[in-house]
Amino acid sequence: MIKRVEPPERLLMGPGPINADPRVLAVMSLPLLGQFDPVFRQYMREASELYRGVFQTRNRWTLLVDGTARSAIEAALVSLVEPGDRVLVPVFGRFGHLKVEIAKRCGAEVRALEAEWGTVFPPETLEKAIREYRPKLVAVSHGDTSTTMAQPLSHLGRICRESDALLYVDATATLGGMDLPVDAWQLDVVSAGLQKCLGGPPGSAPLTLNERAAKKIERRKHMEEGLREPGQRDGEGPVIRSNYLDLAMIMDYWSDKALNHHTEATSMLYAAHECARILLEEGLQKAFARHQRASDELVAGLKAMGLELYGDQKHKMPNVTGVVIPRGVDGEAVRRALLEKHGIEIGTSFGPLRGRIWRIGTMGYNARPEAVQRTLRALEDVLAARR
Amino acid sequence: MIKRVEPPERLLMGPGPINADPRVLAVMSLPLLGQFDPVFRQYMREASELYRGVFQTRNRWTLLVDGTARSAIEAALVSLVEPGDRVLVPVFGRFGHLKVEIAKRCGAEVRALEAEWGTVFPPETLEKAIREYRPKLVAVSHGDTSTTMAQPLSHLGRICRESDALLYVDATATLGGMDLPVDAWQLDVVSAGLQKCLGGPPGSAPLTLNERAAKKIERRKHMEEGLREPGQRDGEGPVIRSNYLDLAMIMDYWSDKALNHHTEATSMLYAAHECARILLEEGLQKAFARHQRASDELVAGLKAMGLELYGDQKHKMPNVTGVVIPRGVDGEAVRRALLEKHGIEIGTSFGPLRGRIWRIGTMGYNARPEAVQRTLRALEDVLAARR
Repeated sequence: MIKRVEPPERLLMGPGPINADPRVLAVMSLPLLGQFDPVFRQYMREASELYRGVFQTRNRWTLLVDGTARSAIEAALVSLVEPGDRVLVPVFGRFGHLKVEIAKRCGAEVRALEAEWGTVFPPETLEKAIREYRPKLVAVSHGDTSTTMAQPLSHLGRICRESDALLYVDATATLGGMDLPVDAWQLDVVSAGLQKCLGGPPGSAPLTLNERAAKKIERRKHMEEGLREPGQRDGEGPVIRSNYLDLAMIMDYWSDKALNHHTEATSMLYAAHECARILLEEGLQKAFARHQRASDELVAGLKAMGLELYGDQKHKMPNVTGVVIPRGVDGEAVRRALLEKHGIEIGTSFGPLRGRIWRIGTMGYNARPEAVQRTLRALEDVLAARR
Repeated sequence: MIKRVEPPERLLMGPGPINADPRVLAVMSLPLLGQFDPVFRQYMREASELYRGVFQTRNRWTLLVDGTARSAIEAALVSLVEPGDRVLVPVFGRFGHLKVEIAKRCGAEVRALEAEWGTVFPPETLEKAIREYRPKLVAVSHGDTSTTMAQPLSHLGRICRESDALLYVDATATLGGMDLPVDAWQLDVVSAGLQKCLGGPPGSAPLTLNERAAKKIERRKHMEEGLREPGQRDGEGPVIRSNYLDLAMIMDYWSDKALNHHTEATSMLYAAHECARILLEEGLQKAFARHQRASDELVAGLKAMGLELYGDQKHKMPNVTGVVIPRGVDGEAVRRALLEKHGIEIGTSFGPLRGRIWRIGTMGYNARPEAVQRTLRALEDVLAARR
């Protein structure tokens, strides 16, 4: 007979999921409510308001997509992209490729602009590409955990507006860990996930969109079969190719109209609500500084051990650090020993970096000196045993 | 300042979500694990095995889709339907319309076969329609909570095989509450959600598919951009239009290859694991009988109060009951009074039934005599106060 899960205590120092804040885990055991219960609708409104704080926006449409971070990337792209639309994707790691992939499946004509892994794009390169290609949408990662790089974005919103392009930012890996003022930077749609700097479990994906994006999405709104009222007219644009990830419908569900769509994932909403509440209680700037301190401490410790860091350090994300696996060391054996002997997980790598670097996260609840020091000591111990 | 959620205790007797089993809520607060942690991969294998028990199948591909029940409906349809494919949808309530809607968005040519609400289809009608239309896929609800009807399905699998059609069954509302032997009835793909008879929170959707369906899906498998190995070949069919809901990729993620796709929703997986474990510990047949007893008790109580039931009682689902709102009674006022005075939620209705019936669920953890009796007493009290 299969027994109840009894997960061992791990210190999760990979690129996510990380250990959820115990206060977030606690709310997940609270009793469920009906999705149209006035108290639950109030929690939904509060979640919108809390994530406005987290995204630094006044966007009315600030909501949760019921899936992991990737579901919100697809919700953004499938709702914004009409088949045949030109989409420009600056690719500086695996999650750039993911946006190429999703945009193509949405029927977009995609141009991928590639930067060498471990670097980011100078703003001029992006500006030139946008002026030349004239995309309807630019879809870019803020931070790409696969390379540990963060793309500077402060001017990209302005450039996109000048070219009449929409800008979607995938902030899965950075929201809550790095400054990302959505309104000040004129970002049209931004999404994330709970399992990184927000300190929650994967399975709920906060998303915000402004009026520019809402206009495009609402033009394409089609009422669901079985919910259409007599005489009600559909939008003019081509129907959004997904129902589950149709942001027009998700917006109607989150609006005061409360139109039936999916059944909001109750416990995940409690978790998302608590993640944002804890972050805003600490204060965004304090949380960003805490991530930076944890990163600095980790970097100092790794250098003191004689380890080499991966990538352009000027653009390293403060919440994940790439470490070059020393010559002659079996990277996977080290990871296994860390997990088995010390209960600590660090990350492996993808594609061109497979077997070349480890990735160590200092995110959310784990962006703490104790977690960093424990990881450094354990890594030192494991490496010493192999020399 | 927005406070931590503090949901009031409710007795949720609507058509779902219902109160989660306290044992399920408890596992949701357990610590997270990394998605490739050997212990977590073991929990995924166990979840597959547990749901094989729940679905009464030996299907290798038995897994969770990371979203609410609707995400798995779309995963099934978007992965099975190639643009231009003929799809037949027997519609006997709102959730039939939903499958028409999703299949159309997947590019299918859809024929909707409609039954009067409150009734189901005689098997001959379905057989005739399949022979005539020759669909590649038949997509049907097992139970449709909007009308409280359950479609008999025991012969439909054979009929579909004879016509070389695949059969998808949406068992969101019935899995765990009614017998649905997937292998014995030759159902090709079946999906559900946790928040009804399985007694869990919404946000994870169990799905099983057999080799007939796997063959079609694998033919369409395309590797994700950024994960393709040199020389690796893509499938031949048209690419599946979603990445997040691409079952070929989700199968690779759940397989021993453990190919990276989404990040499995850790806490929701714990919940899904526990839901199935509790159900199998009780025994499927005992759970079905418990649902039937709860339904019988509810029906007897409602009749004793002189209330009229909705729809063809021979085909009523045992886990939800439609009650005709008596003449002169404001149905919404009654629902509000039940919630405010008694902390009990019952369901309203959609479309042609709006304002005409209440829907009372007796599902999962709430298919218990105490819950039924408390609901009957409260309804009697509220109705008496209005006479």
